[in-house]
Amino acid sequence: MTPRMLKVAAAQIGAVNRDADKKETVQRMVKLLEEARSKGVQLVVFPETTFTTFFPRFLFEDPAELEKYFEQGDDITTNQDVKPLFDLSRSSKIDMYVGYAERTDDGRGFNTCIYYSGQKGRILSKYRKIHLPGTKEPFADPEAINQLEKRYFEPGNLGFKAFRAPDLIPGVAKKGDIPAEAKTIGQGDPILGMMICNDRRWPEAWRMYGLQGVELIMVGYNTPWNAKHLFGFRKPMTDEQAEAEAYYHHKLVMEANSYMNACYSISAARAGYDDGKFDLISGSAIVSPNGYTIAQAKTIEDELVTADIGLDDCRQGKETTFDFDRHRRTEAYSLITSQTGVVEPELLAAEVP
Amino acid sequence: MTPRMLKVAAAQIGAVNRDADKKETVQRMVKLLEEARSKGVQLVVFPETTFTTFFPRFLFEDPAELEKYFEQGDDITTNQDVKPLFDLSRSSKIDMYVGYAERTDDGRGFNTCIYYSGQKGRILSKYRKIHLPGTKEPFADPEAINQLEKRYFEPGNLGFKAFRAPDLIPGVAKKGDIPAEAKTIGQGDPILGMMICNDRRWPEAWRMYGLQGVELIMVGYNTPWNAKHLFGFRKPMTDEQAEAEAYYHHKLVMEANSYMNACYSISAARAGYDDGKFDLISGSAIVSPNGYTIAQAKTIEDELVTADIGLDDCRQGKETTFDFDRHRRTEAYSLITSQTGVVEPELLAAEVP
Repeated sequence: MTPRMLKVAAAQIGAVNRDADKKETVQRMVKLLEEARSKGVQLVVFPETTFTTFFPRFLFEDPAELEKYFEQGDDITTNQDVKPLFDLSRSSKIDMYVGYAERTDDGRGFNTCIYYSGQKGRILSKYRKIHLPGTKEPFADPEAINQLEKRYFEPGNLGFKAFRAPDLIPGVAKKGDIPAEAKTIGQGDPILGMMICNDRRWPEAWRMYGLQGVELIMVGYNTPWNAKHLFGFRKPMTDEQAEAEAYYHHKLVMEANSYMNACYSISAARAGYDDGKFDLISGSAIVSPNGYTIAQAKTIEDELVTADIGLDDCRQGKETTFDFDRHRRTEAYSLITSQTGVVEPELLAAEVP
Repeated sequence: MTPRMLKVAAAQIGAVNRDADKKETVQRMVKLLEEARSKGVQLVVFPETTFTTFFPRFLFEDPAELEKYFEQGDDITTNQDVKPLFDLSRSSKIDMYVGYAERTDDGRGFNTCIYYSGQKGRILSKYRKIHLPGTKEPFADPEAINQLEKRYFEPGNLGFKAFRAPDLIPGVAKKGDIPAEAKTIGQGDPILGMMICNDRRWPEAWRMYGLQGVELIMVGYNTPWNAKHLFGFRKPMTDEQAEAEAYYHHKLVMEANSYMNACYSISAARAGYDDGKFDLISGSAIVSPNGYTIAQAKTIEDELVTADIGLDDCRQGKETTFDFDRHRRTEAYSLITSQTGVVEPELLAAEVP
């Protein structure tokens, strides 16, 4: 059996200003992809909405201005501004996760990412962000930084659908080669899953992929740390403390959810200070199925974070502690799908039967 | 509104040998409860199966020998050996979480914990462990340490049922005092939930409680770190590495799941070397709803770990990032309740539509 080794990378992108030229931003991505090629990387994960600044922080009154931040069409890989990235992916045979704001052919808006196979020269899978954070209406406080994803995007309508990436690892067993009765864990093309930003804080998203045997989760993110509008709820913090806390929570959910689903994860940040003032954490990282960060960004700038990973390392968790088939008890989980919000018990304690 | 402050403790218990006298073990618990009283603690969490050694590591051929490790009856609080603990709880008006192996009146076996109200002088809630780890049959390898919970216990049949603890915090608003239209978060008696050991690694358990607005989760555990039977799956480790890893995973899941459900948690270990050789991690801890460990054990012995906590600190998470009602998308979670084990996608990638 071929060991299922893979060289992967998170391609962190630093500040992208509100008026940045999209062609130039794509050139920064191309440069990281070239670096990946020179290092023998097979799969590169770019951030969420990578082609532009993180525009949901602004309230746009003019629809035409908003539209500049969306990529038009169901298949954006031949759009003029972004085409050079996909051309290089194809010629280099490097697979990519790329996040962008999608305006579909029929005019709908989603926070989307695609998995583009450099091997196959086409999109293999698309994911649309399901857990949109923030609010539909802007904050009343003019000091607060908005998070208007619920205004600009619909919740994703493609579910959490794991998929196999053919030819990502050359020489792995193919369907016809594997006896039907064999255990398939650790066999066949890698099983991948995609999330976007806030999804990573939701264990439901991870579990949906875990139940499909996912071996590697990819996440692009934009995570501001200066949450002034939250100060009503907590002790005031210094900027240093606020940044450290946002990073701590990011790392915590990536490590814990990778461990609890026995899968690798790659997270890629849009980092730095957009327009010199809108802060975003860094922390692009690669996490093992045992829950350890094995590589992480050192800067808040454009940076390629690489690691060699062995997908068969997912087996330990999947066949022991997290062997779902032996240990999960779905009859005890009913509220998770039957109830959206909180329903508190009565204010006074229920009597024990 | 009365600030909902509470002084809580994890009561860690060190080594308990196979032939330990139950009365003596209960005296060790009594001693910690006395320390709690002297410090003004209102709620103490004891470990899993606290009254005896962690017996599922042994294969018992003789049913009578096995039975010595079970506490008999549906209400064990007046059983002679353990009664002194409940008497002290009542006279001190301290509430307790206590874990034990339960043999019910009709002869069934569960890994159980009860919430005993010192205020009310009776059991307020009972939980039976749902995620039983390990195997039904002993390992073939005579070197391996067994984990036979699936042999000795049935999976819990009481669900994950959050409950209110009346009078735990004196002076909080009562049902009749709160206008029906008021938000109830941060009002009324504390909302508590109970898990046992392995449950804490399962985000489904936490989410079931989170959906009931839980403010404090209590977990007792026995966690061995010398997993020789896993060595087939991983690089051999030194004892030091293996212990550090078991502790890392414990801390990771307590912090991440507390954060993702915006609740406090208290975890209490049976720690140390039972019979001088069977290792169990320490690490009893109290974690904030923001995902930070705020107090933790320093030893592997009997030790009381205390903290002052403010239940209203759960509000920040519950009303912003983790406002379930605004952000959860149950239509995307279906596999979590419809499917127990893993179903992998086809060995070759599905085509994008």
